[in-house]
Amino acid sequence: MKVCIIGCGAIGSLFGAHLARLSDVEVWAYDPNQAHVDAINKNGLCLTGLADFVVPVRARSNAREIPECDFGIIAAKTLHTRPAIEATAHIFRNGAVCSVQNGVGNEEILAEYVPRVIMGTTFPAGHIVAPGVVNQDTGGKTWIGPFGPKPASMAEVEQLADAINRGGMICLPMEDARGALWTKLIFNSASNAMGALTRLPHGIACEQVWPVMFGLAQEGIAVAKALGVTLDGDPVALLEYGKQVAYKHKPSMLQDVLAQRATEVDALNGGIARIGKEIGVPTPLNDAMAVMIKGLEFSWTLKD
Amino acid sequence: MKVCIIGCGAIGSLFGAHLARLSDVEVWAYDPNQAHVDAINKNGLCLTGLADFVVPVRARSNAREIPECDFGIIAAKTLHTRPAIEATAHIFRNGAVCSVQNGVGNEEILAEYVPRVIMGTTFPAGHIVAPGVVNQDTGGKTWIGPFGPKPASMAEVEQLADAINRGGMICLPMEDARGALWTKLIFNSASNAMGALTRLPHGIACEQVWPVMFGLAQEGIAVAKALGVTLDGDPVALLEYGKQVAYKHKPSMLQDVLAQRATEVDALNGGIARIGKEIGVPTPLNDAMAVMIKGLEFSWTLKD
Repeated sequence: MKVCIIGCGAIGSLFGAHLARLSDVEVWAYDPNQAHVDAINKNGLCLTGLADFVVPVRARSNAREIPECDFGIIAAKTLHTRPAIEATAHIFRNGAVCSVQNGVGNEEILAEYVPRVIMGTTFPAGHIVAPGVVNQDTGGKTWIGPFGPKPASMAEVEQLADAINRGGMICLPMEDARGALWTKLIFNSASNAMGALTRLPHGIACEQVWPVMFGLAQEGIAVAKALGVTLDGDPVALLEYGKQVAYKHKPSMLQDVLAQRATEVDALNGGIARIGKEIGVPTPLNDAMAVMIKGLEFSWTLKD
Repeated sequence: MKVCIIGCGAIGSLFGAHLARLSDVEVWAYDPNQAHVDAINKNGLCLTGLADFVVPVRARSNAREIPECDFGIIAAKTLHTRPAIEATAHIFRNGAVCSVQNGVGNEEILAEYVPRVIMGTTFPAGHIVAPGVVNQDTGGKTWIGPFGPKPASMAEVEQLADAINRGGMICLPMEDARGALWTKLIFNSASNAMGALTRLPHGIACEQVWPVMFGLAQEGIAVAKALGVTLDGDPVALLEYGKQVAYKHKPSMLQDVLAQRATEVDALNGGIARIGKEIGVPTPLNDAMAVMIKGLEFSWTLKD
């Protein structure tokens, strides 16, 4: 079976490297970062930290050099979902593409380009240490399931989950993965928005700005409920648990803000706000965070 | 008549210098900044910009060296209101103290220390150029009136307004100055909170994050209405007018954030939120801004 990682950054590399350990899986990786691609092709893809091994992976910055694949795993930042799948759609003419990205809205975009889509949510985290080298910071499960409007078959979902599990990660195939996705989405929307706007790490934000985090989570929970999604955990309890295990962790949007990089807010608070509006559930705090974080991004374009 | 300026920064200096031009007014100034005090005593208080003159003012960093005065004008940052009036209360044993500070809550603190209080709102702005030198950036009116719970007499209010007017500023004595105060408060709460959190100057914030500014103003308007305050202008129209005349102006809380100084949020969004809660008017957006800006201030205490 052939798998192509779309966006082989920190998360994409975790999936790519684990899958490449299997003799029956051929792993390709598409990434626009030429230095990273060259390093992977020369030295293999190297994981450090929680995982610690090197495997050969076929990396390309030109998607035309990648053969047709049975599966795609897209791990690009959400704001690159469309250009990434536009560049690689031909690879999946008969394939299924699985998103392990943050937030909501990615699967809808994939569905415009490929025949079958798998929705997913993943908890492991890492960061790129050097071209070709990714440190796995934390472990955790991945949940995947058919994307309703343009679903992959459950057999495909199970085949992909089986390979990920055999590669050494933990992946749960589900008929309905929305509960996992929304649980993480709500967690992320509260933790990331506070990080971006107040510059506080997760646990300290829980202490200093809890009423706002709680309010954001309550709105997300109301939207999920109105959508008919059964959350597979309590996002509020997850925020509190994160306070213990990720006290000083800087949420990814805070990292983006500190680097003045565009954030994933459109897929997080913006996604909750958009869906809330569609189904008539008010989300005033998520609306405000989405607008303000886009405003903050705009401020970086101003001279003085 | 003797007047003491309490907190002789940019705004205090504008009032002090204009009043010191009058032969029948003796102006004292209390300020903890010794270099500023020394420069004023040596060279006089110098205004540049819109106003352009130098006058002698008796400045002191030790309030015990200041004689009893008929009037105080407090222009300290709101977070210094209590220490400033604690240090100077003895000067006003038989006097009336007028706040020209931002926000709400200052007059309540003054009333704990002095026999009669005048509430006020002022629009002129300036900044300290060097010790003893203040640039007047913008002009505008000042509104003053008796503070209900512990009022100065209307005669006193008129006497102070008359002196300010003769000194060259524009001051309107009013039976009820709350309408002016709340109009500026609501304007400030929207403009300043957006500046602090998104780093956008006033006019650009109006373009980029208008839904949040509008929402903040609507909450403030609802609180004012429930308080029985008749606004003397439409804060939303004022925000839009500011877009024309102060497009690139950085609201004071944005200046504070850039300098990592404590902001006046407790007297602005925090004041609206506190009073809203007291009288049962929901202010979820102002609540959130107050919490988040305090969180942002806390982030400056963190080491990496």
